[in-house]
Amino acid sequence: MTDLLESALNPRSVAIIGASDNIHKIGGRPIYYMQRHGFRGAIYPVNPAREEIQGYKSYASLSALPEVPDLALVVVGGDKTVAAVEECAARGVKSAVIIASGFGETGPEGMELQRHMVAKARAAGMRLYGPNTQGLANFGTGAIAGFSTMFIEVPPMDGPIGIVSQSGGMSAMTYGLLRGRGLGVRHVHATGNEADVTAGELALAVAHDPEVRLLLLYLESIANPEMLAAAAAHARERDLPIIAIKAGRSAQGQKAASSHTGSLANEDRTVDAFFRHHGIWRVRDPHEQARAAQAYLKGWRPEGRRLVIISNSGASCVMGADAAEDEGLPLAELSQQTQAAVAAQLPGFATASNPIDVTAALLSDSGLFGKVLPEVAQDPAADLFFINIPVAGAGYDVQAFARDAAAFEDTTGKPVAVAAWQDSVAEPFRAQGIATFPNEGEALGVLAQVANHTALMRRQRVAWPALPEVALPEGAQGFLNEADSLALLARHGVPTVPMYLCRSAQEARNAFDAIGGAPAVVKACSAEVPHKTEHGLVALGVATAEQTGALYERFDAKMTEMGVARDGVIVAATRKGRHEFMVGARIDPVFGPVVVVGDGGKYVEALQDVAVLLPPFSQQEVLQALRTLRISPLIDGVRGDPPLDVAALADVAVAVGQVIAGARGAIASVDLNPVMVGAAGEGAVVVDALVECGAAGAAPAAH
Amino acid sequence: MTDLLESALNPRSVAIIGASDNIHKIGGRPIYYMQRHGFRGAIYPVNPAREEIQGYKSYASLSALPEVPDLALVVVGGDKTVAAVEECAARGVKSAVIIASGFGETGPEGMELQRHMVAKARAAGMRLYGPNTQGLANFGTGAIAGFSTMFIEVPPMDGPIGIVSQSGGMSAMTYGLLRGRGLGVRHVHATGNEADVTAGELALAVAHDPEVRLLLLYLESIANPEMLAAAAAHARERDLPIIAIKAGRSAQGQKAASSHTGSLANEDRTVDAFFRHHGIWRVRDPHEQARAAQAYLKGWRPEGRRLVIISNSGASCVMGADAAEDEGLPLAELSQQTQAAVAAQLPGFATASNPIDVTAALLSDSGLFGKVLPEVAQDPAADLFFINIPVAGAGYDVQAFARDAAAFEDTTGKPVAVAAWQDSVAEPFRAQGIATFPNEGEALGVLAQVANHTALMRRQRVAWPALPEVALPEGAQGFLNEADSLALLARHGVPTVPMYLCRSAQEARNAFDAIGGAPAVVKACSAEVPHKTEHGLVALGVATAEQTGALYERFDAKMTEMGVARDGVIVAATRKGRHEFMVGARIDPVFGPVVVVGDGGKYVEALQDVAVLLPPFSQQEVLQALRTLRISPLIDGVRGDPPLDVAALADVAVAVGQVIAGARGAIASVDLNPVMVGAAGEGAVVVDALVECGAAGAAPAAH
Repeated sequence: MTDLLESALNPRSVAIIGASDNIHKIGGRPIYYMQRHGFRGAIYPVNPAREEIQGYKSYASLSALPEVPDLALVVVGGDKTVAAVEECAARGVKSAVIIASGFGETGPEGMELQRHMVAKARAAGMRLYGPNTQGLANFGTGAIAGFSTMFIEVPPMDGPIGIVSQSGGMSAMTYGLLRGRGLGVRHVHATGNEADVTAGELALAVAHDPEVRLLLLYLESIANPEMLAAAAAHARERDLPIIAIKAGRSAQGQKAASSHTGSLANEDRTVDAFFRHHGIWRVRDPHEQARAAQAYLKGWRPEGRRLVIISNSGASCVMGADAAEDEGLPLAELSQQTQAAVAAQLPGFATASNPIDVTAALLSDSGLFGKVLPEVAQDPAADLFFINIPVAGAGYDVQAFARDAAAFEDTTGKPVAVAAWQDSVAEPFRAQGIATFPNEGEALGVLAQVANHTALMRRQRVAWPALPEVALPEGAQGFLNEADSLALLARHGVPTVPMYLCRSAQEARNAFDAIGGAPAVVKACSAEVPHKTEHGLVALGVATAEQTGALYERFDAKMTEMGVARDGVIVAATRKGRHEFMVGARIDPVFGPVVVVGDGGKYVEALQDVAVLLPPFSQQEVLQALRTLRISPLIDGVRGDPPLDVAALADVAVAVGQVIAGARGAIASVDLNPVMVGAAGEGAVVVDALVECGAAGAAPAAH
Repeated sequence: MTDLLESALNPRSVAIIGASDNIHKIGGRPIYYMQRHGFRGAIYPVNPAREEIQGYKSYASLSALPEVPDLALVVVGGDKTVAAVEECAARGVKSAVIIASGFGETGPEGMELQRHMVAKARAAGMRLYGPNTQGLANFGTGAIAGFSTMFIEVPPMDGPIGIVSQSGGMSAMTYGLLRGRGLGVRHVHATGNEADVTAGELALAVAHDPEVRLLLLYLESIANPEMLAAAAAHARERDLPIIAIKAGRSAQGQKAASSHTGSLANEDRTVDAFFRHHGIWRVRDPHEQARAAQAYLKGWRPEGRRLVIISNSGASCVMGADAAEDEGLPLAELSQQTQAAVAAQLPGFATASNPIDVTAALLSDSGLFGKVLPEVAQDPAADLFFINIPVAGAGYDVQAFARDAAAFEDTTGKPVAVAAWQDSVAEPFRAQGIATFPNEGEALGVLAQVANHTALMRRQRVAWPALPEVALPEGAQGFLNEADSLALLARHGVPTVPMYLCRSAQEARNAFDAIGGAPAVVKACSAEVPHKTEHGLVALGVATAEQTGALYERFDAKMTEMGVARDGVIVAATRKGRHEFMVGARIDPVFGPVVVVGDGGKYVEALQDVAVLLPPFSQQEVLQALRTLRISPLIDGVRGDPPLDVAALADVAVAVGQVIAGARGAIASVDLNPVMVGAAGEGAVVVDALVECGAAGAAPAAH
């Protein structure tokens, strides 16, 4: 699949085609950077107009080099770019980084040129980076095949963080933000147009660097999710967190993205599901990536989300509790013993329950934190700690607070976050290595993120070892009719309503008795009429066999009149649940099989109260997803209703996922709406189904 | 109502009871501050142990002063506090600030002491501030009756901002954050326990200071909304924006607040509705208050929300478009002419549509911003501008960008926000007076806030000049029965289902014909059985007069069996709408009449898809509120449905609001569920109603 891109990330030799002596030029900067950051391989400037460049012998052409370089950095633009790439391929260069823009992002003509370069490279076994990229930078090896000015603005320092970004600007900004926090960064790679190597493949390579302990991604499109999934799988194995931005979350953003890179839009809920499935945490921007970095690098992997808040301000206790609820962090219930022990340390008017308000008494007793913290440390009810110091300064021994907090963190091994907006207060905590934030929103946001992300990474992953063989009716295309749709699902274990497809009025009358009599449902069945209700082709509450026979005649005549395929008339039992859900599935052009489960009924599209899951997934994961629905309060039963049989609904979702994955492209979509879900123990039953055939084999498989 | 608290905010003389020569002590600091910040009135230290304090003659007691001071700052604690307050009251002091804690916040005993002080003060016409407060500070007059150390940490500068806070810590923090941004602050007042003067009354006083152009509040409870409403009304009149924090937004936060101040929790959605009603913008914390301050002070009052984004990074254009959608800001559609004019200034591969990506070409052409901005300025489609510079530094002429942006803002008079995380980039913009933020989230958050807040402040306020006289049935208490409830609403113009309350089977049979025959609804009517369905006392789809008579007998017997009041049996017409809504109203113990409108049906409480409105409000405001519901996509009609008659629903909400306000406490609550709403033009009709009687006169009136 990949050689982990060794020839680009750790090349033995680098040629710079279009090298410059001026370190402020794009052709000069990489040489300067490599020299400065300890690159140990050979550096070969290529520039026919020069004898020497930045102290290195300059060569007239690639063919003049003493060896074939592992990596060529193509800095020349315009027509020269393509010629240079062709020459690299011909000479056996292993990797080429193409800086120039003016290719796929500009339109069909540029795309054609880009495809030409890729074809040449592929034929020669050469990998391409870019075009339209700021290049690659590995401060572990000193191989800097990039020109970002940010490495001058903010001095590099090797460290445990890797950045892989489709955008050069975002790779530079994220690098700058991390360095501004004093964190070391090893990898800063931009993939640009991704004509060949994608962010996913680079992520996989970086994830294999044993020094990397945090991996940050910026994506505008996910073109081949398999590689990214592989990177995530490897990262999970070695407990390497990945935090990703996927821009173009909104309709406005996707429109802007398509004009930026010309890339296809991904459906955003599916992107969310993909990240969740693979244990990747999604954030909105580089600031959110940078602010959480220290917490991950400190090794925070909390086992729960129960929070203790300690502050010297009652107001901050209140706002902290509010912010905790915003972040879904419950306040830990400290034991009576802990509360008593804490109370013994505090002045009479202070609060010993959680949030713990040590009050302004902290001003007169700087040891208060040091006295309170060890008492709280004893209590197993807490997973996360938040110290909020909205006011301090002259008269406060902040150094002592910081020492006490650091000692506490050492003792408990549990995450401690501090909020302090005053630099004079924040600095002593930072100096002690405490994760310190300007406000409670950020502090609690990071605590919640790390707790939720840890759970996501450690979630037990299911396998679906034997996908079913799914056979569609011979010659089927487009939509299956309802009877065939229901029968297909029933064959694969999905509970469906008892029904008969009838070909005559007599069959219909017989069917009425066979399904158990009144009330029956009678529906026309035609693959060409997926929405029957709108044509008056559905009758509910049918009371007698005679009515059933009469309806057969009427519906058959109506289908004849409409000139549509007359597949028969369905006579089905009436099944009512406690609530109508929906289960759907489709083949996403990028992500493959996708399952949707949510509130059912007529307004599914309008109200969009659904959750998205990527196969394979377990019943348990469906149950968790259902808890994210707006109608989730109904699950446990309200107003005297019994709880709903969501386990049965989840089983339907799992079965549908296995059917669409097992069909391997032969099914394009499944739409089950409504799925009638009864009270717990009563099961779920599908009363309407629509299966759409796909172009078998053409669609991506499950991953 | 108030003398605008002149004797505390602009006193001619101040006594400090418990004065200290040590400026680091609570009794020393206020004297130091007043001296330093130009207080022109008389300062009278009171301390029997001293001859002189900080250069002022010290007095043995209040009675020894040469005059009765306007303001007394009571710094002594314990038993001495009450004695000092009593003496102040006896001597005719106009205002007393009580610093000490240990009163209402500690429990019943402390509350009793607090009440005693208030009683003494009230009897003497003296106003009290606190207890348990950090005090007052007016840097306009130099009257600093407070001891916050923050005035030493961060040097004061008089300016156009007022802070009124229940918490001393939050007043100090907000002051510090604003001063850290270089903004001047005039008022920094903390109200503590609010035994007498509340934050609302202080807000009203500060709103009358003509120098104040921005008013920031921190509240943990709203005890008397009338004063705050008066402050907001005066502020709106003079275009003074108010930004409020109301902590205790969440269940966890309210619990923490009650242990902090012992104050009653306000229902948070009602707090939201109150702020919205009065044009107050609500934020979560002091950081959100501080970050928006400059924008308000610059006079930003945008007339719309259409945004133009300009960046030198395509990725930032995408993320900016995403963040704009998060904030509900639509991207302005620039005219073809504008796009062509912009395109003419940009290199071939740059994007001239909005968001405008000037690309890294900015590096080689520092004049790009200056060329592009005037073209955009011509276009009337834009209300707000956002310049995002994620990467700049060496080689970029940021000074030129900043000058161009400032010139653009001057020309257009429209808000321009900049995001730049690099200090070297942000500084030149700040120096030009441009509102500059570290990231796009904050920049767009502030643009959206100011636009939405401006609309809220300028919203046309309706008056309900003549509230109806609402008469309840003689002797009514508890719940009215359904027939009385419906009849009461019908009398006040609410459309209700045609129905008869029948006292015999014969009356029921007659009623069946009178309401138009089948299908009829037959329901038992008893004030003691508000939830009839659960007792089998409702029959739908009744087909004949005979069935109606039989149901009468059955329901009457059942009520007899249950031993409840037999008020009769209702025979009503069947009314179905396109969607079931609910309209409710109740008397909030703090805010008075509150109207709720939302999705109806059995699960109203569980699913909580409702909006809250405070009277008086217009049909238009109800329609806007309905757009915030999760079911709002159904309003315009989906899946072939016609639009809903939400105007008729809004009329019901207005009528219900007028009824509960007009009842002046005689009605405690109204619950109309479902309200059947038909297609546009078909109206709305209430088919079930429950009116609860209140203790007339006891509840607050509408405000």
